Amino acid sequence: MSVQLTEPAAPAPTASAEVPQVWLNLLPLLPAELPPPRNAEGSSATELMSRIRLKAVQEQERCTDRSLPIPEDVRSHYADVGRPTRLTRARALENYLATPARIYLKREDLLPTGSFKLNSAIAQAYFAWSEGVHTLVTETGAGQWGHAVAYAARLYGLNSIIFWAGVSARQKPARRAILSMLGATVHESPSAQTVVGRSILESGKHGLGSLGTAIGEAISYASDHPEVRYISGSNLPHVLTHQTVIGLETRSQLEALGEEPDVLIAAVGGGSNLAGLMAPFLERKAERGASLRLIGAESAAAPRLTRGEWRYDHADPYGVTPLSKSYTLGRDYELPETHVGGLRQHSGSTAVGVLRSSGWLDAVAYEEQEIFETGQLVLRLEGFLPAPESCHALRAAIDEAAAAKEPRTIVACVSGNGLLDIEGYLASLPNLSS
Amino acid sequence: MSVQLTEPAAPAPTASAEVPQVWLNLLPLLPAELPPPRNAEGSSATELMSRIRLKAVQEQERCTDRSLPIPEDVRSHYADVGRPTRLTRARALENYLATPARIYLKREDLLPTGSFKLNSAIAQAYFAWSEGVHTLVTETGAGQWGHAVAYAARLYGLNSIIFWAGVSARQKPARRAILSMLGATVHESPSAQTVVGRSILESGKHGLGSLGTAIGEAISYASDHPEVRYISGSNLPHVLTHQTVIGLETRSQLEALGEEPDVLIAAVGGGSNLAGLMAPFLERKAERGASLRLIGAESAAAPRLTRGEWRYDHADPYGVTPLSKSYTLGRDYELPETHVGGLRQHSGSTAVGVLRSSGWLDAVAYEEQEIFETGQLVLRLEGFLPAPESCHALRAAIDEAAAAKEPRTIVACVSGNGLLDIEGYLASLPNLSS
Repeated sequence: MSVQLTEPAAPAPTASAEVPQVWLNLLPLLPAELPPPRNAEGSSATELMSRIRLKAVQEQERCTDRSLPIPEDVRSHYADVGRPTRLTRARALENYLATPARIYLKREDLLPTGSFKLNSAIAQAYFAWSEGVHTLVTETGAGQWGHAVAYAARLYGLNSIIFWAGVSARQKPARRAILSMLGATVHESPSAQTVVGRSILESGKHGLGSLGTAIGEAISYASDHPEVRYISGSNLPHVLTHQTVIGLETRSQLEALGEEPDVLIAAVGGGSNLAGLMAPFLERKAERGASLRLIGAESAAAPRLTRGEWRYDHADPYGVTPLSKSYTLGRDYELPETHVGGLRQHSGSTAVGVLRSSGWLDAVAYEEQEIFETGQLVLRLEGFLPAPESCHALRAAIDEAAAAKEPRTIVACVSGNGLLDIEGYLASLPNLSS
Repeated sequence: MSVQLTEPAAPAPTASAEVPQVWLNLLPLLPAELPPPRNAEGSSATELMSRIRLKAVQEQERCTDRSLPIPEDVRSHYADVGRPTRLTRARALENYLATPARIYLKREDLLPTGSFKLNSAIAQAYFAWSEGVHTLVTETGAGQWGHAVAYAARLYGLNSIIFWAGVSARQKPARRAILSMLGATVHESPSAQTVVGRSILESGKHGLGSLGTAIGEAISYASDHPEVRYISGSNLPHVLTHQTVIGLETRSQLEALGEEPDVLIAAVGGGSNLAGLMAPFLERKAERGASLRLIGAESAAAPRLTRGEWRYDHADPYGVTPLSKSYTLGRDYELPETHVGGLRQHSGSTAVGVLRSSGWLDAVAYEEQEIFETGQLVLRLEGFLPAPESCHALRAAIDEAAAAKEPRTIVACVSGNGLLDIEGYLASLPNLSS
């Protein structure tokens, strides 16, 4: 049997009634207005972004409604990939910690590409198909977004081109193989494929590659290929909107259990699983104040929320992107090599920055070693291997539960599974081959 | 945080009403009586097996009731790991094949250890805990059973020792790491750890290791360590019984969809996912005859059902096991190196042999290359990477659907996922690193 490269798009099944009907618009829920992106002096980056992005997502970002309908075709695919995902209680972990707290885990790791990224990839592939686009280009850090795009592109018969932060791409031959099997074209960033990539290579800086170099290259590629559209898997308001299915489902699932959350926790890279989990609870946050805690867990290798500055910066080191306001370490920050590629970026999301600068969002940063130990503990107790990024949220949940003196309800998002990130565990935990 | 080796056993949640209340006893459903195991001349293997095995599973094998209650604690753990597993319709695959057939997939790959093996591992770990046993020893081929045992042992605070067919263990560093992280002790078979292992090593045959060498060593180890109990993850009647949750759930799920299956398909190694899927449909098979097809899909590297003989043989090459009747290639058969370790054995299950010799079960064998191409096709169309073993069932489902001239309902068991078996894909599919 020969495997054809161009299967027809799949007819979708009917969505379950349990799949949310709408996404939430995060913007009206934020405690302050979102500082808009702007051009650096002499740059026309915002115009470029407008030209290379999908119309539908730009319309979504201009929308001021409280909610946006999820197209039926997207809902059907959500159902098909297993939405609503499970909300499980981590009883073994609670027992181990001897905590009075209850720990709930929102299990985005159970999606077929192994992470929450699929929620936005399906939506954006649908919009691309609706607009007659045939090829998508994007960047990916850890590879979860690239994997999701490769999958979603196939659902709609589209081509996908993925610029992958080199340091992560080289760590993950298994995930890379799956992207290739899905038919995606993969380039390690910095690459010689784009003007920006060549400039970065010539500069001798950022040679390991990061999400930032990959963003710069994906935009550069789209700029030079007018038939291609650039999509992004994090950071931007429409992505955060798509990820609100996580929180909407979580809220319904908690209500069915008679639970009201006291702490909501997510790992934070670009911020979309965090915003997606927390958005439906922001009205409660406004009411409850400090009695509802929101925690972003980041990597000590890229400590933007804990050590960065709340200011305008480019999201890529070369300055291709518009200036956007976020907590940033500066675009020249040399990110160390690490196995938590999904959190390895010098800046972040404006919306998450608004939550942080308004005092609504607490932040914690963890070192790589404690992250992988957390993953091993979760594997032993709960039976699944979390992605290194997700371990940050799990570690924060453990710390919160361990400190609890009375019953409280902690909810953490397990943003992805670690089966395709095993190399980080192998490198960080001793004696695994014994 | 230091990860302790001895966490307390986890309290289990309440099982969902959708988790079956009972396992089915396969024996009364078979078209002929099960030929019992017996000793080779001068051997006391059956007595040894009686001594080293758990009491509860031997009682289950003597039971003549039509069903056996699933202990509440086991049901709770079944619920906790995600039972009932999903029954998904492979619409993209149907569309690709332009078939009038409907293809349903029973998704055991979604369990946290990535395969159906967990269904019996949880049950046997529970029984061991009930009997005051602290250490379990077992064998594994592809590693899925070993992974499940390592997981289930932790649920009940037990130690696990895994003899792993060397050829597979060496192929799978990621799965091996996870077993180690779970706290299992892993030995590549043949090993110097046991009398049998040393004999095999000295013989110069079976040096690659197989499920058979690992069975021989696990039994040998238990024989020399009276405090340890030997458990098995396939082949034996009680294992097939535990796996009937697969078929019981499938039957309920099909009924809820108003579907009556016309073809049931499973990959066949030891035969437990096959028997587990098909047992609840055997009464229908007796009524419907040829209009309900049962298909076992095996590896052309170990073509027992298609080319073997229905006779008594040992399940291990050294003759440690009792003689049991099954389709066998002979215990001296030199199995080639392959990436489908779960199907790589010279003999099989007596119960499956009864189905085959009675004419109820059809069999097909597939070459490794076409299996991995099938896996890639399924990844592209359905979004998940099946285990190489499961690809055999999927390939048979594709062949059945492609040949269908009118609507029919095909049900295949996806016994496991392939994320920890990526090496086989890498070795078999060209240009994956491009």
